[in-house]
Amino acid sequence: METEIRFIGKIHSELKSIEDCPLQETENAPEAEITIFPEFIDGIKNILPGSEILLLTWLHEADRTVIECIPRKNYESPLIGVFSTRSPDRPNPIGIHSVKVLSISSNGLIKVSGLEVLDQTPLLDIKPVLNR
Amino acid sequence: METEIRFIGKIHSELKSIEDCPLQETENAPEAEITIFPEFIDGIKNILPGSEILLLTWLHEADRTVIECIPRKNYESPLIGVFSTRSPDRPNPIGIHSVKVLSISSNGLIKVSGLEVLDQTPLLDIKPVLNR
Repeated sequence: METEIRFIGKIHSELKSIEDCPLQETENAPEAEITIFPEFIDGIKNILPGSEILLLTWLHEADRTVIECIPRKNYESPLIGVFSTRSPDRPNPIGIHSVKVLSISSNGLIKVSGLEVLDQTPLLDIKPVLNR
Repeated sequence: METEIRFIGKIHSELKSIEDCPLQETENAPEAEITIFPEFIDGIKNILPGSEILLLTWLHEADRTVIECIPRKNYESPLIGVFSTRSPDRPNPIGIHSVKVLSISSNGLIKVSGLEVLDQTPLLDIKPVLNR
């Protein structure tokens, strides 16, 4: 079975290091730009400004050996299982981000609202947000 | 950069082929069981029955070359970009499923409500559902 991921694009953000990141995306995350690589541009042709989309990212600086962790900024807490957290440090560091499309251009540049990921983070997928 | 995914578990479902699958998970998808592999079991120790979780799966039978597609069961439609659809056939066939935990055992067996994935689908990640 094929188990290699493919990058479809890349995030451009003013967040240059993990210390710059807010704890959750609702906490004043900045706007970001996404470049879609040429071979995948036909895949975004029906995305419209104003729509809500899910971005799946590959959190490339994550520690993939983490199975238990201390909740972020809560050093007194006992260790909890990583699958009860949104920590980027996990066996498969896939980020899920709900954002709004601010603008989109035919050459594959998408501008989105508040996104908490580091500059240069690879993009794996874009999905529509379903009403449910 | 490391780009290999790791399977943390596997889905057991009565859905044995793609023809068995409902169009969306809300359409009577069956309950399913998840086996978590031994080396990842400490990661699920804080998941409780009744909680809502997100499952990320690797849709292993997908066609990863698809960039544009016809909406499922809508053969008159023009081709649309795959990133405006939830089609499993896409460059990175990662499924996102919101389910409810029905039961969980210490040996890593989780029973969940309606889940639309094929039997033997690999599991990539579990995340809590955030209130936002």
